[in-house]
Amino acid sequence: MKFTDEELIVVEKLEILKNEAGSHSPGIFTFRQKLPELEIKIDACFLSNPYATDLFIEYFNKEILETGKIRDLLECYPSQNGVIAEILADFLDINAKNIFIGNGAIEIIQAVIHNFTEKKIMINIPTFSSYYEYVKEGVEVVYNELSKKEDYSLDIANYIAKVKFHRPDTIVLINPNNPNGAYTRVSDVQRILDELWFVKNIIIDESFIHFAYESKNYQLVSMANLVEDNPNLIVIKSMSKDFGVAGIRAGYGIMKKEYVQTLLSNGYLWNSNGLAEYFFRLYARSDFAMRYDILRVRYIIETLEFIKELRQLPYIKVYPSMANFVLIELTNGILASEFVAKLLITYGIYIRICDDKIGLEGQFIRLASRSRSENNYIIESLKSCLEMNSVLDMVNETVV
Amino acid sequence: MKFTDEELIVVEKLEILKNEAGSHSPGIFTFRQKLPELEIKIDACFLSNPYATDLFIEYFNKEILETGKIRDLLECYPSQNGVIAEILADFLDINAKNIFIGNGAIEIIQAVIHNFTEKKIMINIPTFSSYYEYVKEGVEVVYNELSKKEDYSLDIANYIAKVKFHRPDTIVLINPNNPNGAYTRVSDVQRILDELWFVKNIIIDESFIHFAYESKNYQLVSMANLVEDNPNLIVIKSMSKDFGVAGIRAGYGIMKKEYVQTLLSNGYLWNSNGLAEYFFRLYARSDFAMRYDILRVRYIIETLEFIKELRQLPYIKVYPSMANFVLIELTNGILASEFVAKLLITYGIYIRICDDKIGLEGQFIRLASRSRSENNYIIESLKSCLEMNSVLDMVNETVV
Repeated sequence: MKFTDEELIVVEKLEILKNEAGSHSPGIFTFRQKLPELEIKIDACFLSNPYATDLFIEYFNKEILETGKIRDLLECYPSQNGVIAEILADFLDINAKNIFIGNGAIEIIQAVIHNFTEKKIMINIPTFSSYYEYVKEGVEVVYNELSKKEDYSLDIANYIAKVKFHRPDTIVLINPNNPNGAYTRVSDVQRILDELWFVKNIIIDESFIHFAYESKNYQLVSMANLVEDNPNLIVIKSMSKDFGVAGIRAGYGIMKKEYVQTLLSNGYLWNSNGLAEYFFRLYARSDFAMRYDILRVRYIIETLEFIKELRQLPYIKVYPSMANFVLIELTNGILASEFVAKLLITYGIYIRICDDKIGLEGQFIRLASRSRSENNYIIESLKSCLEMNSVLDMVNETVV
Repeated sequence: MKFTDEELIVVEKLEILKNEAGSHSPGIFTFRQKLPELEIKIDACFLSNPYATDLFIEYFNKEILETGKIRDLLECYPSQNGVIAEILADFLDINAKNIFIGNGAIEIIQAVIHNFTEKKIMINIPTFSSYYEYVKEGVEVVYNELSKKEDYSLDIANYIAKVKFHRPDTIVLINPNNPNGAYTRVSDVQRILDELWFVKNIIIDESFIHFAYESKNYQLVSMANLVEDNPNLIVIKSMSKDFGVAGIRAGYGIMKKEYVQTLLSNGYLWNSNGLAEYFFRLYARSDFAMRYDILRVRYIIETLEFIKELRQLPYIKVYPSMANFVLIELTNGILASEFVAKLLITYGIYIRICDDKIGLEGQFIRLASRSRSENNYIIESLKSCLEMNSVLDMVNETVV
C-alpha cells in the first residue's frame, strides 16, 4: 500500500499505540488521548450491537436521567454481589447461589483462572488472549491449535481425544469463538460435557452467544442451564457485546455454588457500579427483554447481509462466523498492518489487526458488524481500498 | 426503647437484612428492594461529602449529558489500567508505573492482600472488616486492639513494639481510622516507616484523609509521595468518600512498580468503567481540583460544627474524629440495635450500628456528617429520640 509522508507518521504512532496496549486494541478514549489528530468515524474493532445500546439509552434517559435518579446511581454504594445475583436468578431460572456477578466478564475470567485452575489449562487458539495471559505462574498452558483448513472450527472428536490425552484440569471453549466466530452446537457441547466429565473446570465463554442460533427463528441459545447437572461447567457471560454497554462493565458467571461461595468469601463485595446494577435490574425485566430480543434478531439478520456482501469483495477470504464479527484473511499480498492503517487514515474506520493472535497464520483482520448504514460505509471503503491497491499494484508492475 | 407491634415487624426485618449483608451495612438500593415500606430520608450510614457529589454532577451534566457524550461512556470500552494511571501521574506527581487503578478501593485491598500478604498480617481493631475478611486461608491475623481508654487512637510506641514482637509481613493502618476517625499524624507515620523498615507491606488506607488536616488552613495531607523512598509502603485511596461518588467505583493504590507490574501482568485490564474514567480525568484537572478543595474545606468546617453539637447531647459519648463521621457510644443503658431501629422507623434516618465491629466494647453507632440541613435534622432527631427514651425510663421507674 502507498502512504504519504504525513500518513507514515500516523502509521508509526499507531504502531506504538498498539504495542502499548499489548494483545488488546487500544480503546476509543485512549485513541483520542494519544492520537487526537485522527478522527474515527466507525469503530469496527468494537464488537457490540448498536441497536441494543440505543434501547438501553432510551430506558436510561427515561428512568434515570429524566427522573433525577442519576444522582443516586453516582453517589450511593451499589448492592452487594449476592443481591444482584438474586435479581438475575428468576429471570435466568438459575439459583442465585450459582450466580457470580462480575465487573465485566474479564473479572470473572480472572477470578476463575486465578482461583480454580490448578496445574494445567487447555486453550483453543486462536482465542481471546486473556485466557492464557491470566494464567498464574506455574500453571502449564496446552494449546489446541484449530486448523486453518477447517476454517478454525472446533473438531469435536479430535478435541475430546486431545483433552483425554493431556488431562488438563481446566479447558476453555469460547462459543462462538473469538476472533473467528465459529460456533459449536449445543449437542456438541453436551457431548464434550458427557465425555469430559473428569475435567475439573469446563469454561464456556458465551460472550457472543446472543448472535448465534440453531433454529430458523433465531431463538436464543445458552449452556447456562446445564450447570445444575454438570458441576464442572462454568459459563461466563459478558453483557458488553450483545447489549452494547461495554463502558458499564457488567458480566456474570454461572458455576457451582461452592465456587461462588469461595469467591465471595474473601472478595468481590461491591464490584458492580451503580450503572451496572441498574443495567442488571433492567436486563431482568420482561418489557426490556422483549424489546431487546427484537433488536437482537434484527442485528443478526443485518450481520448476515453484511457478511454476504463482504464475500463479494476481491482479495479477501471471509471465514464462517455466527458472531457479530468476521475474521478476514487478506490475500494478494496485502499486509494487514498497512490495510488497517489505510482504512483508519483515509476512511476513519478502525478495525482489529490480528497479528498478535497466536494460532493464526497469514494476514488477518477482524471486522465488527455495526449498524446497517455503518456496514454499508465499511463495505464501500473496503471495496475502494482493495481496488485502489490492486490498481497501484498494476501500476507498479507496469513501471517495473 | 418502646416499639409498637407494627414497628417490631420492621425491627425484625431490619435484623434479617443486616445479617444477610454480613459485616457491612446494606446499601440504599438493597434497602428499597427488600424493605420498600421504609422511607429513608437521610442516609447517615453513608460516608460521603454531598457537596462534592453536587460538584461532580454539575460537571457531569455539562460535559457528559448535555453534550451527548454519555453514549460513549456507556457504549465503549474504557481505557486500560495503565492509561488511566498516566492521567493521574502528573496530577499526583507520582510515576504512572507506581499507580494501580482499582474498581473502588475495595478491589485494591483485595488485590494487595491476596497477592502480597504472605503469612501474617497485623490489623488494628476496631477497623474496616474487609482487611481481615479478605485474608486468604493459611494467613495468620494478629489483632492490635486499640484501647478504649485512649479513645481507640493509635499509641505509636506500643504499636511499633507490637509489630517488632509479632513480625507480621503486612500491617494495615487506616488513617483516619474507620469506624472511629482517629488520625495519625504524618510525623508519626514517618516514625512507623523508619522503625518498621523490615515489614514487607505497610498498607496505609487514606480513604478518609481528605477530611483530616494538620494546619489551620485545612491543607490536604497524604502519605502517597512517601512511596518512592519507602518501597514497602502501599497507599490505598478510595474516591467514594471525599468525592461522594461511591456508585462510580473508583480508587487507586500507590505502590512499588514491581507490585503494579505483578498485578497488571495477569489481570485488572479493564477494571474501570466509563464513568470512573471520566471521573479520573476530571479529578486530574486543575479547574475541578480548585473548586473541589473549597467544598472539601466547607464540609470539614460543617462537620466540626456537627460534632460540637453532638457533644451537647445527653446519654452519648462522642469519640474524637478527624474523618467525616463520628463513633458514638450510647450510655444510660440504651441498646444500639433499638436506637438504630427507632431512628430509622420514626425519623427516617439510617445510621450504622457497630455491633459487628470486633474490638468495640459497648453500645456503639457510627454517624456520618451530611449537608448542614441534614445534620441539623439529625441533631434534632437524636435529641428527641434520646430525651423521649429518658422520659419513658422515668415513667417506667415510677410505675415500678
